[in-house]
Formats: sequence, C-alpha cells, structure tokens
Amino acid sequence: MSIVVHCPDPAETAEWRDRLAALMPEARVEALEAAAAPEAVRYAVVWQPGTGRLARFPGLRAIVSLGAGIDHVLADRALPAHVPIIRTVGRDLTQRMREYVALHVLRHHREMPALAAAQAAARWQQIVPPPATGRRVGVMGLGNLGAAAARSLAALGFDTAGWARSAREIEGVACFAGAGELGAFLARSEILVCLLPLTDATADILNAGLFARLPHGASLVNAGRGGHLVEEDLLAALDSGRISHATLDVFRQEPLPAGHPFWRHPGVTVTPHIASMIDPETGGRIVAANIRAFERDGTVADLADAARGY
Amino acid sequence: MSIVVHCPDPAETAEWRDRLAALMPEARVEALEAAAAPEAVRYAVVWQPGTGRLARFPGLRAIVSLGAGIDHVLADRALPAHVPIIRTVGRDLTQRMREYVALHVLRHHREMPALAAAQAAARWQQIVPPPATGRRVGVMGLGNLGAAAARSLAALGFDTAGWARSAREIEGVACFAGAGELGAFLARSEILVCLLPLTDATADILNAGLFARLPHGASLVNAGRGGHLVEEDLLAALDSGRISHATLDVFRQEPLPAGHPFWRHPGVTVTPHIASMIDPETGGRIVAANIRAFERDGTVADLADAARGY
Repeated sequence: MSIVVHCPDPAETAEWRDRLAALMPEARVEALEAAAAPEAVRYAVVWQPGTGRLARFPGLRAIVSLGAGIDHVLADRALPAHVPIIRTVGRDLTQRMREYVALHVLRHHREMPALAAAQAAARWQQIVPPPATGRRVGVMGLGNLGAAAARSLAALGFDTAGWARSAREIEGVACFAGAGELGAFLARSEILVCLLPLTDATADILNAGLFARLPHGASLVNAGRGGHLVEEDLLAALDSGRISHATLDVFRQEPLPAGHPFWRHPGVTVTPHIASMIDPETGGRIVAANIRAFERDGTVADLADAARGY
Repeated sequence: MSIVVHCPDPAETAEWRDRLAALMPEARVEALEAAAAPEAVRYAVVWQPGTGRLARFPGLRAIVSLGAGIDHVLADRALPAHVPIIRTVGRDLTQRMREYVALHVLRHHREMPALAAAQAAARWQQIVPPPATGRRVGVMGLGNLGAAAARSLAALGFDTAGWARSAREIEGVACFAGAGELGAFLARSEILVCLLPLTDATADILNAGLFARLPHGASLVNAGRGGHLVEEDLLAALDSGRISHATLDVFRQEPLPAGHPFWRHPGVTVTPHIASMIDPETGGRIVAANIRAFERDGTVADLADAARGY
C-alpha cells in the first residue's frame, strides 16, 4: 500500500510523512510530489492539495483531510469524483477548539479589550459585566467541534444556544435549526461563535444582513473558515458599533497579509489559525487508525459527505 | 433592629443602604457615619471599615463582610472582640470567580500575551501549546471560590491540582494539604492560581522562595489579596524569566497607583479588582437572608472564624 502526503509547507509534509511512516510500517509513505509510482497510491493525506494534484492517482481509495473540514479538498476543481474523503477529528482537536472558544467568549464577556485599553492608560476602571448566567451566547455549527464548544460554554455557566442546518439535541444548550429558526437564534446571541463547515450554503454567511439581526453591540468569534466572513461588512459593523468586537482565527487569505486592516483595528483580535490544530504526534495516530479501518471495512466513522460539503 | 452600612465609596454605601432598606422593611438601615442611635445598631454591613468605626456600637450582634474574605475587617485594630463575622458568598460571586480564573488560566495556557504582541507587529506567528490535558494547573486555596475554580479548570480539561491548609477531596482535582505537601504541589504547577484567604500564615506567601519551587517559566494568577504577593519579588522573577507572566487582580494599594511598574510591565496583566464582585442587586438578597438567619438561629452557614482568619 502506498500513501502520499501533502501540505502547503514542505517541512510540514516531511513531518507528517515521517510520522506516518513510523506508525504504518506496512505502507510506503512519500511526499505527494515525490511519488515514484502514482498508480500504486491508495491514500492521499492532505491539507490544501490545490487543483489537479489528486487526479494523478487513478487507484486512490480515499483522501484524508488533515482537519475536520473538507472545504480545502473540495476546492480542487479537478478532484477525482466519488473518492471518499475521511475527516480527521479527535480528542485533541476537540479539546483545543473548546479551549479556544471558551477563552475568547470569556474574553468578550469579561470585556478584556476594554480592560487592556485601561491598563495601557494606567487607568483603574472597574468594568463589571453580569455573571455568565446572564450572558446569551450562540454557537453556529453543531458538528463535533461546535457541539463540544457549546457544551463547554454551558458548563461555564453561559446561557448557551446553538444553531445547525438540521435539528440537534444537546443537554443544556437551546438548539435552533434551519433557516426558519436562524432569526430567533441570532436575536438572542450577544456573543456569536461561528464553527460552521464552509459550504456553498454557508459561504459569506457572516455578512451585514446577519449582523443586523444580532443584538446591537454583539460580538463575534470566527473559528470556522475565512470564507464565512464578508470582511468589509465586518469592518463597517465594527465602525458603526453594531458589532463591538471580533476575534478571528481564519481569513480569506492566510497568512493574513501584513497590510490588512484587521491587524491594527482596535475592535479585532487576530489569532493566526491556531484555534485547533492537528499535530503529527497525536494526529498521526488518528490518521493511521482511520486508514487501517477503511482498508479493513471500506468505511470509517469520520467519513465526510462530499455532496453535503462536510 | 438597626443596621449600618459602610463602604469606602459613599456612593456605594448609599446603594447598599437603599437596597437593604428595600429588602428589609423590618429594619432601620443607615450609613454607618450617619447612625443616629449607635447603641441600637445590631448589624454592621461593611467593606474595609478601617480602624475604630465598629467599636462605636456596643450592641453589635454580628459584622457582615461584603465579600468572601474577612481580612479587611480583621485589619481594624480596634475591632470589638468576639463579635461574629458573617461572610457574604453566593452563586454570583462563585460564578464570577470561576469565569475569571478560567479566562486567565486559558489566556496564559494559550499564550495570549505573545499572540497579542504578534498582532501588534502584524506578525503571523502560530504558537501551538499542548492541549489543556497536558497543562498542569494549581489552585492555592480550596474554599468556596477556590474549589469552584478548580472544578471548572478540570472540566475544561486541565490537569488540575489544589492546595489548602487542611486535606480536601474534590473530584477530578489532585488535592495537596499543608506545608509538607506544598513543595510537591508547586513543583507541578505550570500555572499557579492564588485564591487563599489573607491571614498571618498566608501574607507574603507569593515570594521569591515560592517562585523558585515552581517549574521555570511558570505563570501566576493572583485573585486572592494584594497582601499575598511580594511585589518586588514578582518583578525580579519576571525579569529573570522564572515567571513568564502574571495576571493580578489585587494589589497592596488599591486603586493601583498610576506610577506603579505593574501597569506598564509587558509581563503583567492588571485587572482592577473585578475578578468577583458582589453587587447590591443579588448580594443584597444574600446579606438580608444571612442577617435574618442569624437573628433567628444565632448562627449562619457562612460564619467566619476570626481566630483562623477566614
């Protein structure tokens, strides 16, 4: 069995290749660009494969996305049709995402940007928000990561709601579903967290129209994808005060270009796509286990639905 | 029954007085300084009463501290002996403290100060800490607030320990007790949270000797009292790198003087004693209920032990 690996950064590709080679002695593991016998390749383990790279492998049994999302694979306009896509999720990915969401929702809730500004001015200014039990938070997207994040917020005491395409039940979380319930969900979300998958239906969803349905002065945490956010709409909403603060982990262009206004906007916290990362150490074990399960059974729990987009 | 109220800020005194008057129509509620008939005063509801003010009331049945700590009452060098002191704790106080501790432990864990510096320089710098399951956090002080904070940290996934004067059992938290186990507790605390009561035994406990027993580069969150911390020892430990960051909510002198080095130190996050506040709205109900219970039974669950100091 031959496995190829591709990340945009060659050093990362090498790391994953070496880790998978060590974990899977039964396989030949190579960097995608270096594949000696393309017809022997059965699995491609990829992050942002670009267009056309995967079409080189006629015997491909599955594509493994090095993340929970598959949008970066579906972006391949020459993607071989009908090849299953395996998502990589796992305890560490979920753990890191719920930390990130808890941290940034708490930062917004406890008005850390205003407190940081007060510290910079050596100003003793007591800002006392209500307890989290009086703060309404909404999580868009209730997949593995969204559901775990919503549960953590509820456990911290927040009045937590969630919204997803189809109906969900999560203990302690008020769940809304579909376009019909989006308005009610948004109207109650003082802090909105986006953990949606990026699909045709969710692209550009964080736009002026959506911001107008939030309570005035609501804040935003986007740890979904850059493609969810209409950047100029956010800048306008920040400047008008409709949105009080935004914490963004994902961007249309990554790395975020040095001249981008988000870097210096006082209403924006930029984090460099680190909300939740899969590292070769623990992620390698998940990828290896998924490939072996797929070899054995022809399926795996974390199989994505390419038609649905996640 | 006559009740007097005193806070350092007259506006706050008036707020508490009005709130308690509304909640306790059976009592005469006055500002302490305005008490018309000192011999009729049965309860004094106070924050930082200073020295000598409480000795004016010969018929005092109990002193109510507007907080979980009683150090600010015991600081009264003319404090009438043997008058019971009632602490004010409650759901909102606990809720706010566990938010504060979760927020600031997560901030340290996820290296937000370094990420904020990267943003200020428009630098895309991915910093990837281990998941919280691989991060060892220690909470000193396991009273109502400390135990609740430790439980929240454990629920977020942190490898959580606690230390208190006497043995405690908290599910999911490794508990250490007494001077004999302090060293082992400190040696494992990459992020140390102080929620101790301020007593003769704990004053100045956060000093160079303690910092030397933490892992190199550990960080500190002090939401106990300013008197726990030897400020110049912290500055030295920050400058040597022994302590990587400190978040401080309490100070020897509050408000923290404008010229104090903590305001501008890149290794210090200053918050203006807002970790957990009792506001008249919800706190008033707790105080009223405690005074009524004490009138009825001669005791109350949140009675402090003045000899012990908390």
